[in-house]
Amino acid sequence: MPGDIITLLTDFGTADSYVAEVKAALLGQPHGATLVDITHQVSPGDVRAGQYILSRVWRRFPEGTVHLVVVDPGVGTTRRALAAEGDGHYFVAPDNGLLTSLPGTARFVQLPIPPGAAPTFHARDVFAPAAALLAIGTALTHVGKSITDPYRSPLPIPRMDGLTVVGEVLYVDRFGSLVSNIPAEQVAPGVRIKVVGTDVGSLRRTYGDVEPGQLLAYVGSDGSVEVAVRGGSAARLLGVGVGAEVRA
Amino acid sequence: MPGDIITLLTDFGTADSYVAEVKAALLGQPHGATLVDITHQVSPGDVRAGQYILSRVWRRFPEGTVHLVVVDPGVGTTRRALAAEGDGHYFVAPDNGLLTSLPGTARFVQLPIPPGAAPTFHARDVFAPAAALLAIGTALTHVGKSITDPYRSPLPIPRMDGLTVVGEVLYVDRFGSLVSNIPAEQVAPGVRIKVVGTDVGSLRRTYGDVEPGQLLAYVGSDGSVEVAVRGGSAARLLGVGVGAEVRA
Amino acid sequence: MPGDIITLLTDFGTADSYVAEVKAALLGQPHGATLVDITHQVSPGDVRAGQYILSRVWRRFPEGTVHLVVVDPGVGTTRRALAAEGDGHYFVAPDNGLLTSLPGTARFVQLPIPPGAAPTFHARDVFAPAAALLAIGTALTHVGKSITDPYRSPLPIPRMDGLTVVGEVLYVDRFGSLVSNIPAEQVAPGVRIKVVGTDVGSLRRTYGDVEPGQLLAYVGSDGSVEVAVRGGSAARLLGVGVGAEVRA
Repeated sequence: MPGDIITLLTDFGTADSYVAEVKAALLGQPHGATLVDITHQVSPGDVRAGQYILSRVWRRFPEGTVHLVVVDPGVGTTRRALAAEGDGHYFVAPDNGLLTSLPGTARFVQLPIPPGAAPTFHARDVFAPAAALLAIGTALTHVGKSITDPYRSPLPIPRMDGLTVVGEVLYVDRFGSLVSNIPAEQVAPGVRIKVVGTDVGSLRRTYGDVEPGQLLAYVGSDGSVEVAVRGGSAARLLGVGVGAEVRA
Repeated sequence: MPGDIITLLTDFGTADSYVAEVKAALLGQPHGATLVDITHQVSPGDVRAGQYILSRVWRRFPEGTVHLVVVDPGVGTTRRALAAEGDGHYFVAPDNGLLTSLPGTARFVQLPIPPGAAPTFHARDVFAPAAALLAIGTALTHVGKSITDPYRSPLPIPRMDGLTVVGEVLYVDRFGSLVSNIPAEQVAPGVRIKVVGTDVGSLRRTYGDVEPGQLLAYVGSDGSVEVAVRGGSAARLLGVGVGAEVRA
Repeated sequence: MPGDIITLLTDFGTADSYVAEVKAALLGQPHGATLVDITHQVSPGDVRAGQYILSRVWRRFPEGTVHLVVVDPGVGTTRRALAAEGDGHYFVAPDNGLLTSLPGTARFVQLPIPPGAAPTFHARDVFAPAAALLAIGTALTHVGKSITDPYRSPLPIPRMDGLTVVGEVLYVDRFGSLVSNIPAEQVAPGVRIKVVGTDVGSLRRTYGDVEPGQLLAYVGSDGSVEVAVRGGSAARLLGVGVGAEVRA
C-alpha cells in the first residue's frame, strides 16, 4: 500500500522557500507519510544527474514509497507531467527522461495541469498534489490518463574494445569520486583501470588500501567501478568529470 | 488545533550543531508534530530575506502550524522575544520585523527570557521551548504577556511614475532569478519590463518561451514579476541584486 | 526505551544519494522513529569535527535516542564498527574516536560486518541496520559482541600558565566564530581574552554589546569561551582556525 514515505529529489537548492512550498502542498493532504529528502542539490537543470541519483536509490525504499522527482528545465512548456508505478513504487516527474530507470513493466499516466498552476512551478502545483493523492492510495489511473510512450533516455552503457571494457564517468560525487558505468562483474581479475589514459591500478577494496593522496579504483557501493583519491578528489586531481573515458 | 507541523526558518546553516540543538529542544516536549525545515541558509543576519521567505510560505501550511523564525542579529539585547497567532497559524520570532507579514488581526505576546538562557542562542533556549508549548495547544497568552506594538517593517511597495510601475528586486533565488515586488495585476498587457534600464521584453509564460541564455520576464509562482535567464542567472548576467529597480 | 528518534551525523554532504541510501536502510525496519539530521556537512574525513559536534548535541536529545555517527576515513579497513549505550542513549559509529564523549560507564559492542557490505559504505550496510535494530529495542549485546577498549581520543583541555588559562580553538562555526575549550567557570572576572596574541577584551554578554565589525569574547551557548565578530567572521578577521591559541 502506498503512503508511508514520500521522497523528494529536485534541483531547487535549500536556500529558498521552494522546497518548503512543495512540502506544504504534500502535507496539505493528511496522509501521515514521512517526507525524506533525497537531495535538492542537483545542478540546476541537470536532468541526467537527477536520473542517475534516482536510479541508485529508489529501490532501496520500501514498496509503496512515492517519489517526487523534479528537475524540470521544460516546466510550463508542452512537455508532459507524469505519474507512474513500477515494482510497487510510485513516481511523479516531468516527462524528460528522469524516470528511465523504471522497469519495462511500469505504468505511466499523464497528469492534467490545473488551470491555476504556476507555469514555472509544477513541483508545487502539479506534482506535489498528485504525489499526495498517490500517498493516500488513489489509483494511478485516477490521477491521470494512461500513456504508453514516456520519454526514455538510457544512461550510456560500456562497449568492448577487444578485451577491454570502455565505459565512462556517469557521476561525480561530493568527494570528487568518479562513478563509472562499468559493472564490477565485467572487470577481469587483475586488469588495470585507466581514466582518460591515467593508469590507476587494479581494483582495490577500499580507500585505506592506498596511501593518503593516492588514486585508487574499487567497486563502488552501487556495484560499478569507481575511481577516487584517498582523502582527496579524483575529479580535481585528474581534471575530469562526467563523460570522461574509463577503461577496464 | 496547533501541533501537527512545526516549521523552522533560520540563518544557522546546516554545518554546525545549532539546528539540531533547536530540534532537540522542540522534540523534548512530546507533541508528535512533524518538523519541516523551510531553510537555514538565510544569509547571516539578513532579517529582510527571512521576512520575505516567511511571507511567501507560511499560509501554504495547514492552520495550526507553528513557525519558528529566527534571524536574530540582536539576540540577547533588549529586543523582545515574541510569540504570535495570526489566521490560525502560530509563530515565535525575535521582534525585529520578521513577522511583518502577519495580518493586522494577529495577536502578539512577549516571551519571558528564562534565567539560564544563553544570551547568544535564544532559538534553542527561548523560542524552541515556546514553540513546543504552542504545539501541544498551550494558549498564546499562557506563554507570554500580550503586547500591541510589535516592530513592523513592511517590504517596499511599487510606486507609479506616470503610467509606469516602478518597483524593485525583493529577493534573488538560488537560480539567480530576480523576484520583484510588482504584482502581476499591475502590469498592463504588452508592457515591456526593464531592470535597471535593461529591456527584458514583455511578460512570457515560462523559461521555455525564450532561447537558452536569454533574459525573460514572467509572472513568478508567488504572483509577482520575476526576471530570469533560461538555464542561467539573471543576477549574474545583469550584475544586480536586491533593491535593483524594476519598471513595468 | 529506544526508538523515538534516530539522529544522523556524517560527512556525506547532501548533494549525492548517500544520505538517502542510509535513511532507506533505517526506514527498512518499521520502528516509527523520527529521523533528525544533525549535520552531513562535516569536512570529508574530519573525525575531530564530528566528535566535537556529537559531544555538543547528543545529551540534548531524549533518552533512548539512537545516534548514527559516521565520519569514517578508515571504512572497510580493520578499524572496528561499534555500537554503544551511554546514559540511556544509543550510538553506532566507527571505532575512531567519534564516541569519545560517551561517559566512562558506557558499554560498547563490535558490530559484525555482513559479507555483502560495501567496503566503502558501512554507514548504509553496517551502521544503519544496527541503528534500526537498536531503534526497535534490540539489546546492545544482541547486535554485536562486547568490547572494553574502544578508541578514545579526548579533545584537548586547557593548561595553566601562571594565572592564565591557555586553551585553543576547538571548532569554527558557519559564522566564523571561534569556539574554544576554555570553560567559562575557569575565566577570572575581568580577565582579557587573547587569540594568538590579539586582545579581544573581557567577556561580553552578546554580539550587541560591541559595534558592528568589532571582535568580542563571550560565553558561548555550550558554556565555553567563544570569540566572534559582530556581523562578521572572527576566523577571517584574525586569520585563525582550529588549534589557534586562546588565553584567558
